[in-house]
Amino acid sequence: MVEDGSFTVTPWEVSGEIDYDLLVEKFGTKRIDQALIDRMAKYGPIHPLMRRGVVYSHRDMDWILDRYDAGEPFYLYTGRGPSGQTHLGHLMPWLFTKHLQDVFNVPLYFQLTDDEKFLFNEGLTLDDTRGMAYQNLLDVIALGFDPGKTKIFLDTEYIHNLYPFALQVAKKVTFSTAKAVFGFDNSTNIGSIFYTSIQTAPAFLGSALAGKNVPCLIPCGIDQDPHFRVTRDIAPSLGYYKPALLHNKMFPGLGGGDKMSSSQPNSTIYTTDAPKVVRKKINTAFTGGAVTVDEQRKSGGKPEICAVFKYKFYLFEPEDRKLDELYDRCRKGEVLCGECKKTLGDAVACFLEKHQEAREKAKDRVDEFILRD
Amino acid sequence: MVEDGSFTVTPWEVSGEIDYDLLVEKFGTKRIDQALIDRMAKYGPIHPLMRRGVVYSHRDMDWILDRYDAGEPFYLYTGRGPSGQTHLGHLMPWLFTKHLQDVFNVPLYFQLTDDEKFLFNEGLTLDDTRGMAYQNLLDVIALGFDPGKTKIFLDTEYIHNLYPFALQVAKKVTFSTAKAVFGFDNSTNIGSIFYTSIQTAPAFLGSALAGKNVPCLIPCGIDQDPHFRVTRDIAPSLGYYKPALLHNKMFPGLGGGDKMSSSQPNSTIYTTDAPKVVRKKINTAFTGGAVTVDEQRKSGGKPEICAVFKYKFYLFEPEDRKLDELYDRCRKGEVLCGECKKTLGDAVACFLEKHQEAREKAKDRVDEFILRD
Repeated sequence: MVEDGSFTVTPWEVSGEIDYDLLVEKFGTKRIDQALIDRMAKYGPIHPLMRRGVVYSHRDMDWILDRYDAGEPFYLYTGRGPSGQTHLGHLMPWLFTKHLQDVFNVPLYFQLTDDEKFLFNEGLTLDDTRGMAYQNLLDVIALGFDPGKTKIFLDTEYIHNLYPFALQVAKKVTFSTAKAVFGFDNSTNIGSIFYTSIQTAPAFLGSALAGKNVPCLIPCGIDQDPHFRVTRDIAPSLGYYKPALLHNKMFPGLGGGDKMSSSQPNSTIYTTDAPKVVRKKINTAFTGGAVTVDEQRKSGGKPEICAVFKYKFYLFEPEDRKLDELYDRCRKGEVLCGECKKTLGDAVACFLEKHQEAREKAKDRVDEFILRD
Repeated sequence: MVEDGSFTVTPWEVSGEIDYDLLVEKFGTKRIDQALIDRMAKYGPIHPLMRRGVVYSHRDMDWILDRYDAGEPFYLYTGRGPSGQTHLGHLMPWLFTKHLQDVFNVPLYFQLTDDEKFLFNEGLTLDDTRGMAYQNLLDVIALGFDPGKTKIFLDTEYIHNLYPFALQVAKKVTFSTAKAVFGFDNSTNIGSIFYTSIQTAPAFLGSALAGKNVPCLIPCGIDQDPHFRVTRDIAPSLGYYKPALLHNKMFPGLGGGDKMSSSQPNSTIYTTDAPKVVRKKINTAFTGGAVTVDEQRKSGGKPEICAVFKYKFYLFEPEDRKLDELYDRCRKGEVLCGECKKTLGDAVACFLEKHQEAREKAKDRVDEFILRD
C-alpha cells in the first residue's frame, strides 16, 4: 500500500489526488518509455491509452516480448472485483486487454473475485457478489473478446481449480508480509488476509494447465500491483515464471476526482445507463470552464482539470490531432463547456447504445466463455 | 492454545504431560459427569472409552440429547489430518464415533484435511497429504461405518462446497482472535491463519444441505477444541446452531508418553503393521515393572504409569472387571510384564488381522463413501 498523507492506494481503496510518479517509485515498477512503445509498435498499433500514458507503468514487459519473439507466447490474465454494476472506468482496462489479445492473438483468463468483494465489504453477501459477477461478465463478453481464447470464471465456482495454487502460495506468505504489503492489522478478518493467494492463482494456472511454464501478462490498475508483487516474489520458489504487468492509471470521475467510483453514482456512468441519464450526468460534470460565458470567451477554460476533457482523453476521442485541437481551442476560449458536454454525451451515448445491444446478446453467450468446475 | 510450562496443547502440537483438568478449565468445557452418563445409557450401551473417562469432556451434550428427544436428530462430524499413516491413536475417536452412529442411527461427515496438513508441515507436499488422505480413509471405511449414512471427503476435492461456508466464517474472525485462540504470530503463513474457516465449514454443511438447522455433534480430541470454540462463537451470527462436542484424551504412546505420535515410529502401532512388528514394538514398551523379576514379585508393578496397561485400558480390554483384576494382580506382583505384553500383543494382532482384511476390501468401496465435487 502507499499512503502519502494526500492520497491512499491499496487494492481496496483509492482516494485523494494520486501521485502516479510516486507510485512507480514506491512500488518499484518501471515507467513505460518511448523505447518500449516503439518496440510494441512492431506487433501492431499502439492503443491510445498507452500512447497517452494512461497505461503508464510495467514490470518485465521487455521480457514478455523477448519470450514472444523466441516463439514462447504469453497468456493474459485480468479480472474484476464484482462489488457493483460495471461503469466506464471498469471497461477501460478491459478494452486495453482486448486490444492486446487482438494484437498478440493470445488466450485470456478473466477472474471475477466474488469471494474478495464479499470478504472486503461488510454490507455485501455472497449472493450479492455472485449476482454482480454475472452482471459484470455480460459487459466483458459484450466487448467482443474471442470466445475461443477467453475464459471467464467466478472464484467461488472455479475454486476447485484455484485452491491448490492458492494453498501453495499461502504457505509461502507470512502475516508479516501481508501486513507490510496490504496494510493489514490485527482487526483484519482472516479471509481478507488469505485472499491474495486466490488472486495469485490464475498467474500460475495457465502454466499448470499447459503442463509447462507459460509467460503471463497481467494488464491491471496500478492499485492491484501489491498482489502481484507477492506473486512475483514467490513464483520462482514454486517453479513458475514471474508474471509481467502493464499498469493503468485510474479512470476519472465526472466530479473531477481521480477515480470513478460507484459510491458517487451521479458522477459515474454505468454501462446500463439510458442515453438520457448519461447526458444528464455529463451535464453536471466538473469542468475547467469559467463562471460566465463572457469570461470563458475572454480567458479560456482549463482542460487540464476538466472531467469532460479527461473523458475524451481517456476513451472518447481516439484521434490525437482532434484532442490537441480541442485542448487549444478550449484554452483560447473558442469552445464552451456546453458544446463540449454535448459532443461527449453523443460519443458516450453512441458507444453505450452498441454496447448495450451486445450486452443483451451476451446473455445467451455466457456458456461460451465461462469456466466452471 | 494452552501452554503451561510443562505441556502445550494446540490443534497442531500436543507435548509434555497433559493436565486434562486444566484443559477443561482453560477451554471452558464441561466434564462428563455421572448424570450425563446415566442419561446417555438410556439410548444404548455406554462405550468403554466414556465409562473410563477417556472421552471425558463436552460442550452442550445435554442440548443435543434434548433436541434428539424432541425429534430433532443430530449429525456427527469428525475428521483426520492426513499427515501420515493411520495408527491406533487415530482409530480410537473413530471407534467411538462409530459407536455413536450405531446408537443414535445418525449421519456422519468425515473430513480429511489435506490442505491443513500441507499448510502446517513444511516438509509435506499436497500430493503427500492427498495420498495419505486416501490411505487414512481406508482405515475409516474398514471400521464398518454405514455407507448409507457416512460421507467422507478431502478438503481439496470438496472445496467447491466448503468454500462458501469458509468465507462466511472467515469474514467474522479477525487476526486478533486467531492469534489468541491458536497462538499465531507474524511469522505464521496466511494459509494457516485462514485454515480454521475450512475446519468449521462441515459444522454448518449438514444444516445447509438439509435446508434447515440440524444439530451437529463433533467427537474429537480435546486438542481440536480451539477450532470449534471459534465455530461456536460465530454460529449464531450466521443463523446456525452451535455445534456440540465430545472430547477425548490423547491416545498414549508405547514409550509412556501422553500421546502416540508418528514422530516416534517405534512406540507407534500403525494399522498396517504386521503381527510380528506389533509384538516387537509392544515388547519394547515402557511398563510399570520393577528392574528384576524377584523385585516385581515382591513389590509389585505400577500399572498407573504402564503403557501396556494403558493400551488395555484405552482399547484392548473391554471388560471392566478383568481390567480391575489385572490392575490388582499387577500391584501385588502376581503378573509379570512379559505375560502382560503377550496378552496385549495377542489382542492387538487379532484386532489388526481383522482390520487389515477389512482395509483391503475398503479399497474397492471408496466410491460408496466419498463425496467429490
